[in-house]
Amino acid sequence: MSNAAISFHGAHTPTSEDPRRAKMIARRVKLLGPSYRLFYDEPFHPVRGEGVWLYDASGDAYLDVYNNVPSVGHCHPKIVEALSKQAATLNTHTRYLHETVLDYAEELLGTLPDEIERLTLTCTGSEANDLALRIANFETGGQGIVVTNLAYHGGTSAVADMSPSLGSGVGDHVRTVVAPDGYRRGTEGLGEAFAADVTNAFADLEANGYKPSVFIIDTIFSSDGVLSGPKGFLKPAVEAAKKAGALVVADEVQPGFGRTGDAFWGFQRHGFVPDIVTMGKPMGAGHPMAGLAARAEVLDGFGKKYRYFNTFGGNPVSCAVGMAVLNVIRDEHLMENALLVGKFLRQGLRDLASHHPLIGDVRGAGLFSGVELVRDRQTKTYATEETEQVVNDLMRKKILISRAGIGGNILKIRPPMPFSKENASFFIQTLDEVLREIPSQK
Amino acid sequence: MSNAAISFHGAHTPTSEDPRRAKMIARRVKLLGPSYRLFYDEPFHPVRGEGVWLYDASGDAYLDVYNNVPSVGHCHPKIVEALSKQAATLNTHTRYLHETVLDYAEELLGTLPDEIERLTLTCTGSEANDLALRIANFETGGQGIVVTNLAYHGGTSAVADMSPSLGSGVGDHVRTVVAPDGYRRGTEGLGEAFAADVTNAFADLEANGYKPSVFIIDTIFSSDGVLSGPKGFLKPAVEAAKKAGALVVADEVQPGFGRTGDAFWGFQRHGFVPDIVTMGKPMGAGHPMAGLAARAEVLDGFGKKYRYFNTFGGNPVSCAVGMAVLNVIRDEHLMENALLVGKFLRQGLRDLASHHPLIGDVRGAGLFSGVELVRDRQTKTYATEETEQVVNDLMRKKILISRAGIGGNILKIRPPMPFSKENASFFIQTLDEVLREIPSQK
Repeated sequence: MSNAAISFHGAHTPTSEDPRRAKMIARRVKLLGPSYRLFYDEPFHPVRGEGVWLYDASGDAYLDVYNNVPSVGHCHPKIVEALSKQAATLNTHTRYLHETVLDYAEELLGTLPDEIERLTLTCTGSEANDLALRIANFETGGQGIVVTNLAYHGGTSAVADMSPSLGSGVGDHVRTVVAPDGYRRGTEGLGEAFAADVTNAFADLEANGYKPSVFIIDTIFSSDGVLSGPKGFLKPAVEAAKKAGALVVADEVQPGFGRTGDAFWGFQRHGFVPDIVTMGKPMGAGHPMAGLAARAEVLDGFGKKYRYFNTFGGNPVSCAVGMAVLNVIRDEHLMENALLVGKFLRQGLRDLASHHPLIGDVRGAGLFSGVELVRDRQTKTYATEETEQVVNDLMRKKILISRAGIGGNILKIRPPMPFSKENASFFIQTLDEVLREIPSQK
Repeated sequence: MSNAAISFHGAHTPTSEDPRRAKMIARRVKLLGPSYRLFYDEPFHPVRGEGVWLYDASGDAYLDVYNNVPSVGHCHPKIVEALSKQAATLNTHTRYLHETVLDYAEELLGTLPDEIERLTLTCTGSEANDLALRIANFETGGQGIVVTNLAYHGGTSAVADMSPSLGSGVGDHVRTVVAPDGYRRGTEGLGEAFAADVTNAFADLEANGYKPSVFIIDTIFSSDGVLSGPKGFLKPAVEAAKKAGALVVADEVQPGFGRTGDAFWGFQRHGFVPDIVTMGKPMGAGHPMAGLAARAEVLDGFGKKYRYFNTFGGNPVSCAVGMAVLNVIRDEHLMENALLVGKFLRQGLRDLASHHPLIGDVRGAGLFSGVELVRDRQTKTYATEETEQVVNDLMRKKILISRAGIGGNILKIRPPMPFSKENASFFIQTLDEVLREIPSQK
């Protein structure tokens, strides 16, 4: 789940009519303080998970169309087995030799282009992006960063500074460019226009004394609003960044691990090879693991000069879990399923658009889709309140979803990857019901 | 395990006579690159862990006197059970309600002074210290940081900048002070001298335009060389930092969770209450979890203004594991054992010192001890090479240990907490044998 646009639209502490949930909310405020936010007007309290379903205390099943961390399905038995077995056998660190980290690195690097030869393991995507930044600054001797204007790359000091979606501003050494939005800007020349913005942003950084260091992009622009294409539209911007002297970091924390359906990594849909690939969320199916893969020449220079050690990163338990995740994705054909069901789902959503004018756009790749709700298809005015209502109404109808984008008007659809056509049909049918109840619908 | 002084003394890639290990080392270089360093001249390859023991492929048992992450003992069955059970039931995030995070927060905060009321969960100690820094900068409006001169506080950009032990320098906004070393400086007026250094460091920061923000200390100075006392000697420095307007952060990543024997947290041995307490390593017995506890007024100001969300932090599996760790520490009286066996161990080491002039000092608290080796007790010259030899010789005799300090001459003794008097005696006896073989010993 992304910190970003979601919390942007949910800063209040919700209350609950249910005494049990109300008590839990009060305990949260007392023990965890105000930075812990909850989804939904009436917070959800799951007690069990299985496949694409989460269950509440009364045994009611909720269809999960949002959580990408358990991308192989909630509580997958193969993952639990790998986790339990290795945890009962050995859990140490990478200062000792162990096969798990080597076998896992080999398998994972095998999913990446040949140019990406080295892996460093961390525990969170924030740590991976933070390290990517340290490496890029070392390699380029620069500090200047270009990100998209609603990007989220993590929560450490350095990456929060380049995560405009947090709403706390970016560093003086960071420039934001408008994410390439084919719906609002049109797809004609979209990649070239995006590239021109990147060139200008780096030029402005240079003019202000910041040598180019990093161009970092979430290759499906998850928090910018799920901007999935057209395929290949990122290539000119990548070239522009390279020309400016920056390293290109593909933040695959959300699109990675087969979710986009026709490639294991989001950047592969756009036909370029980044210098650094960062990854996280679905990597351990909920077990805290993340990482960074890079060209050898990029990582080795840094590694020879600087020490980086992550106490838990790459431990035998994490690597056994990571391997199980890769195996399940392959053995259960989850990437192929993402492609197939994703197309089916978007077709259904487009059909829905024919009698719901609120639906302005349906887009996505594999099992990562965005549905943009607008008050008027000509002006494309954000249907912010309507989208909030849709999210909460869907929850009441036992479907878990969330939203993204600066207007908070884009439904973010990113279910566990064993999501079936039947699940998709149920979602579409329920969304249809919910949309019929939205007042502005004619 | 600390990144710090260890890697400082082990930057080379070791080789192995054993073909299997040699192959693993070659694979590491190819897959993971040069930043992955190994302990020992002949790297260790464990395959199984249990209690205070690690076993290699041929079934030989190694006594672990070093690893603090598995502080409840390697592969503790209660931890494995809690982990497996919760992972099979539900693993989500804190945007939904769940009891585990609340129950755990309540239990953990119960070990802390009343003034420390709020908990934020992360995955690593680096993330916890990085967040502490963000919070302190927000609260104080400053940026100036004072740390000890061989401190290690983590690997993110911001905390690497205040971790001089990494050897890559500190930021312009960071000042280092000499850690309070009773052995080299004498204990007379030690706390006051340390406080004067802290005052001067903050004054120098102010003079250079950096308003005081943070005074952060590992309360047993793990990477500075295990500086354990006298008890209370940190109080004047803490007062000095407060007077300068900085927040005081106790980095309990290494001393925390009962290790120091007479208190659950290292700062409690010194009779002060910090503004922020950071924690990690043993918190999840190897499961990646860490956190930050703070005074309500410190955390709430930041939390109201900034969003902080950690995807994996505080998930039900981590919290179930964390709770199991707290239960084992209590039920198996591990803190009491640390106090008892720690004293027994240090007494044995002091007895050893009577016929081994190489032993300059024996110090510590609970099951965290340092043995400083010197070539001459008058000049206290670092016995760097000798200590390296001792570490490697002990490993050959099936005892796992490491070293710390700027001279790499301090044995760092930090075993899993079920360490018994029998284990301690075996260690002392083996250390005696090893020291007898060191050439410089008369």
